[in-house]
Amino acid sequence: MKDNEYMQMAIEAAKQAQWRTWKNPRVGAVIVKADTVLAVGYHHQYGDVHAEIDAYQQVTDKNQLVGATIYVTLEPCAHTGKQPSCASEMLAWVLKRVVVGQIDPNPLVTMHGIERLRKAGVQVDIWRTPVSEVINPAFHYFFTHQLPYVTLKVAQSFNGKINGAPDEATKITTAEVDVDSHRLRAYQQAIVVGSATALIDQPSLAVRNVSTDHQPLRVIIDRRGRLAGTDQVHQPNTLVITENEMFAAQYEQVQYQATVTPQSVRQLLGGLGIQAMLVEGGSELHAAFVAAQAYQTVVVYQTTTVLPNDGLSSFARDAVFASLGNISDVTTIDNTLKITLKPEEQ
Amino acid sequence: MKDNEYMQMAIEAAKQAQWRTWKNPRVGAVIVKADTVLAVGYHHQYGDVHAEIDAYQQVTDKNQLVGATIYVTLEPCAHTGKQPSCASEMLAWVLKRVVVGQIDPNPLVTMHGIERLRKAGVQVDIWRTPVSEVINPAFHYFFTHQLPYVTLKVAQSFNGKINGAPDEATKITTAEVDVDSHRLRAYQQAIVVGSATALIDQPSLAVRNVSTDHQPLRVIIDRRGRLAGTDQVHQPNTLVITENEMFAAQYEQVQYQATVTPQSVRQLLGGLGIQAMLVEGGSELHAAFVAAQAYQTVVVYQTTTVLPNDGLSSFARDAVFASLGNISDVTTIDNTLKITLKPEEQ
Repeated sequence: MKDNEYMQMAIEAAKQAQWRTWKNPRVGAVIVKADTVLAVGYHHQYGDVHAEIDAYQQVTDKNQLVGATIYVTLEPCAHTGKQPSCASEMLAWVLKRVVVGQIDPNPLVTMHGIERLRKAGVQVDIWRTPVSEVINPAFHYFFTHQLPYVTLKVAQSFNGKINGAPDEATKITTAEVDVDSHRLRAYQQAIVVGSATALIDQPSLAVRNVSTDHQPLRVIIDRRGRLAGTDQVHQPNTLVITENEMFAAQYEQVQYQATVTPQSVRQLLGGLGIQAMLVEGGSELHAAFVAAQAYQTVVVYQTTTVLPNDGLSSFARDAVFASLGNISDVTTIDNTLKITLKPEEQ
Repeated sequence: MKDNEYMQMAIEAAKQAQWRTWKNPRVGAVIVKADTVLAVGYHHQYGDVHAEIDAYQQVTDKNQLVGATIYVTLEPCAHTGKQPSCASEMLAWVLKRVVVGQIDPNPLVTMHGIERLRKAGVQVDIWRTPVSEVINPAFHYFFTHQLPYVTLKVAQSFNGKINGAPDEATKITTAEVDVDSHRLRAYQQAIVVGSATALIDQPSLAVRNVSTDHQPLRVIIDRRGRLAGTDQVHQPNTLVITENEMFAAQYEQVQYQATVTPQSVRQLLGGLGIQAMLVEGGSELHAAFVAAQAYQTVVVYQTTTVLPNDGLSSFARDAVFASLGNISDVTTIDNTLKITLKPEEQ
């Protein structure tokens, strides 16, 4: 087998973790000697051992590692965090060669792991395609731009409505679609909605129906301070962003900004270490992010329902006349279209 | 090879005609002897020889036909129309066996062709799956229900808008998508729009960019008679349907109905021999056909554009809260989704 086939095997291993690595990147590793796979490992979940160590632990006779090659989708870490530095650990294995899928974009790590291995005489080859970036778009975006990766999520009827009347919460998705959208939530560190959505839908914004140890931060954009005195502002794990100074002074979890824009929200959340944020609506907030071109992905669940003309349209704003970008994926879940789009320039 | 493989070959041949058989069904035929294909034929276009004859003409040594088997996707005709009856012609070939994909639903033909062949001692086997119906849905629907097969066609933005402002004709589709929608028109005998669409868009409703010898009838639904005195009512090949008696009395091509409904339009057009009609909008007319469940297919071209909130929504009506049915196909043309739906019960 060739390098690209082993790397592909490591990529497939990495994907198995799904959302469970949370803020950590999903990483896979394959140890090979004499064209025989000794072990396949991956980072299972946040707090667990890294992929290289997971593969290492599966090799019973550690002498086999001498002169072996490891394929790892992301540069081995060189800093001691929750786990000892992988690069240092690996030196003890006396490997011949390390093939790295992508250099780590985290400035604490970039090239440090690779240099440490090279200085110790290990051959390190860097793969030329962004394998880790494809698996971990938010992780890479965050460390490259110092801003969260923004996904806009919409559930709309076939005629583009999000409800049957302006002040109504109209349920159009099925249980199976809801599980998929909770899976999407599980990848995030923040779920963002506008004040109207918070007041009408009373959303918990929590991950349900999907096993996870981490709940994303609830973020409500409430420029005018309409949530003052409501239950919504008292929910745990909540951050409200407002232009209303008096409102902000009243509550600890309400943050004041002189002008709240998609970009100011991203900067604030990026400063909190949030790599991935999901904007769930309503239509005004979605339109604002589209108008500002402040998003990296759009995920739309489109049912076959036709809703009355009175309902609100998705991406509703008088001024918006824009393209959402390129269709990157279309699937069907329970007779509902799941459409993924990416803006033309990111 | 087995019967189903030869029948599949005949189906593929039938499809080659695309829209060119117009009101005639698309039919394919394969002549086989001693497990060898002697000829593959199909009905090329309206007015041309039928599939069986097309296959026959390709056999140089007609003696080879003695004892052969012919697979034909639709029952051979028994009436003399534009072409001599196929069933009668085929008797002279001294075939051993005829395998028929489906019984012809046209009452002038049903079982007549099969009976004529059987009486002459030819073995006729009837295939058990609706092969011809799948290739010719409108032809089969028309002869089964005595009503046209209705396709609703919508071009909408990603947020379900058909224009950027209520009285505006907003172009959102690309040239490549337009060719596809003209191909869809080429299969029809009538294109139907509402009066607002006729007045705002001034549509020719003609098939362009696609080679065809037939233009569908232009049909405008104009209950109140808003087209009186406009150019639209004077266009050639046009039928206007109205509830305004005075308006109808003024023009030869304006037809009066006391109450115009989707069903009354279908009945009128069915009486004119129209098998396939395409309803192109606007949103009120589409909503009326959805509310009346008076359609067999919906084809939606959905671009990635977001249009302003002021624009009209597709399927716009206060009362409609319905499912369009099941998603039967989704493809992408030039970054535009082409979504096909079928109602749950037809």
